Amino acid sequence: MKVKKAVITAAARGERLYPVADTIQKAMLPVIDVDGLHKPVIQIIAEEALASGIEEICIICAPGDGERYLSAFGSLRDNLVKSYKGSDWAKDEAEKIDNLLSRIQFAEQSEPLGYGHAIYCAREFVGNEPFLLLLGDYLYVSDVAGKRCAAQLLELASQAECAVSAVNPTIEHQIGRYGTLTGKHLAGEVGIYQIDKIIEKPSLSTAELELQTPGLRAGYYLCFFGMHVLTPTVFEILQKHIEQGGTNILLTPALQELAATEKYLALEVKGNRYDLSRRQGLLRAQVALGLAGEAHDETLTTMVELLAEANNRKSK
Amino acid sequence: MKVKKAVITAAARGERLYPVADTIQKAMLPVIDVDGLHKPVIQIIAEEALASGIEEICIICAPGDGERYLSAFGSLRDNLVKSYKGSDWAKDEAEKIDNLLSRIQFAEQSEPLGYGHAIYCAREFVGNEPFLLLLGDYLYVSDVAGKRCAAQLLELASQAECAVSAVNPTIEHQIGRYGTLTGKHLAGEVGIYQIDKIIEKPSLSTAELELQTPGLRAGYYLCFFGMHVLTPTVFEILQKHIEQGGTNILLTPALQELAATEKYLALEVKGNRYDLSRRQGLLRAQVALGLAGEAHDETLTTMVELLAEANNRKSK
Repeated sequence: MKVKKAVITAAARGERLYPVADTIQKAMLPVIDVDGLHKPVIQIIAEEALASGIEEICIICAPGDGERYLSAFGSLRDNLVKSYKGSDWAKDEAEKIDNLLSRIQFAEQSEPLGYGHAIYCAREFVGNEPFLLLLGDYLYVSDVAGKRCAAQLLELASQAECAVSAVNPTIEHQIGRYGTLTGKHLAGEVGIYQIDKIIEKPSLSTAELELQTPGLRAGYYLCFFGMHVLTPTVFEILQKHIEQGGTNILLTPALQELAATEKYLALEVKGNRYDLSRRQGLLRAQVALGLAGEAHDETLTTMVELLAEANNRKSK
Repeated sequence: MKVKKAVITAAARGERLYPVADTIQKAMLPVIDVDGLHKPVIQIIAEEALASGIEEICIICAPGDGERYLSAFGSLRDNLVKSYKGSDWAKDEAEKIDNLLSRIQFAEQSEPLGYGHAIYCAREFVGNEPFLLLLGDYLYVSDVAGKRCAAQLLELASQAECAVSAVNPTIEHQIGRYGTLTGKHLAGEVGIYQIDKIIEKPSLSTAELELQTPGLRAGYYLCFFGMHVLTPTVFEILQKHIEQGGTNILLTPALQELAATEKYLALEVKGNRYDLSRRQGLLRAQVALGLAGEAHDETLTTMVELLAEANNRKSK
């Protein structure tokens, strides 16, 4: 099974980075990528997919935002060409944006009816193929040199020929924020599970009763990492849920049904994710990507200088 | 002498935070202020002025940007009112934005003819009064509790009844980036100088010959901190320079003439500045303001967590 398509959900406006982020597109905020360049968030996410072998991307966005992305990328590209004329990195970057633009399309979510509904808006783009699902407000840093988080997930999906969700062992006081799951450890494989049960944002007592996974550290549970390879079956399930009505169609109940319908694995991805919607999320992502990439030494120096300044100030 | 007006120059598009910043307004990028809230950069700068006793602000911007600022602030205000209905902090914030909007106006710089020319665009707003000049891409953190950097400067200007520039003792390898000056230490005053000579971005050999200031640490020079209180005389000087023609009218030569014309002091401000146009400038400012304010402990925890993660990754 070869996965060629990716869906990135970016329809929700930032509620926690809010209120400022709402006045500009959160996904166009600049972050220093691991290659040391300032890029819009959405470009960093799209490059995670493209660098992992994806060929076509559909961004699910709020009505009218597709045009705004295209115009922002167009002016970014023009700036690169105009102002860095002759410099190799600018030429490379402009070509990357051209490549990106030739591979992305947009699907609008006309009404904010939940994350599951947003994904459903990509059904025509996806057709009858498996697809990679990424979140528009998560940035990833892989612990494996030369292999992105998405590439780790796609590798397993293509070997196992089934849906795979990235998971992360998460300390119990944080599981109330995530889809949490349990399953059987696949014999002979490290960090791969056959998914049995998924519960969205479980209470601790529910998790203790229903979501313990043998082999994890005490007090840890498997939580979604925000990255999935899914089969088109998920659209049939989502369609059923949408037809039942409601204003907040979630993904997790659809994935519960998927686990009951077909083979569906979970993979402990080797890496970290940074949620831009969290408190200090943009700051965390900026620093984490700075420390993870080519700007590591510079970022470390910056941190140390700023900590020393702050310390001087406190001691005055 | 009471200074009631401030001019903030925000006409230049970010060249180094560039190319991304150009696709959105750099001055609308969100930064966590010392009060722990995400705010657009320009709001943080305007609040530096208002909190220091300024009553009216003119923002010098590129053609068309005034409308964009107003629309961005309007939607920020609406979001606060709509989404945080009933919460006290949102009401306070919305009132702060209303207050800000009632005190700001915009003057467009029709052509990019240099920093001195940008300031000249504020002459009608300023009229025949002294004014505070701030840069749209510098953020400040004061070392004096309860007294902003701008307040330190305004206090001296009103006592001494003259123009005052904020300066910072700067290590010699960095002076080539700044306007650098020398002067006589005022007897009985700490960190106050009568300005004798100013040179824009001097070479080290020029500085050694012409800009040494007795009393500073060896290898240090007085450089502009990016904040001035100026008299309207500066507009007469700038007008003369503009009439002589040229496409890059600088401020520093005008300030050299000002020093030869009237009493003009320099003050070592107790605090730090963060230049958003520098490499990693946005990152530096984010972290510095986080560490300086109410989010200090949270920011410190974030830094430590991220450094530990990066260290784990390196050792894998």
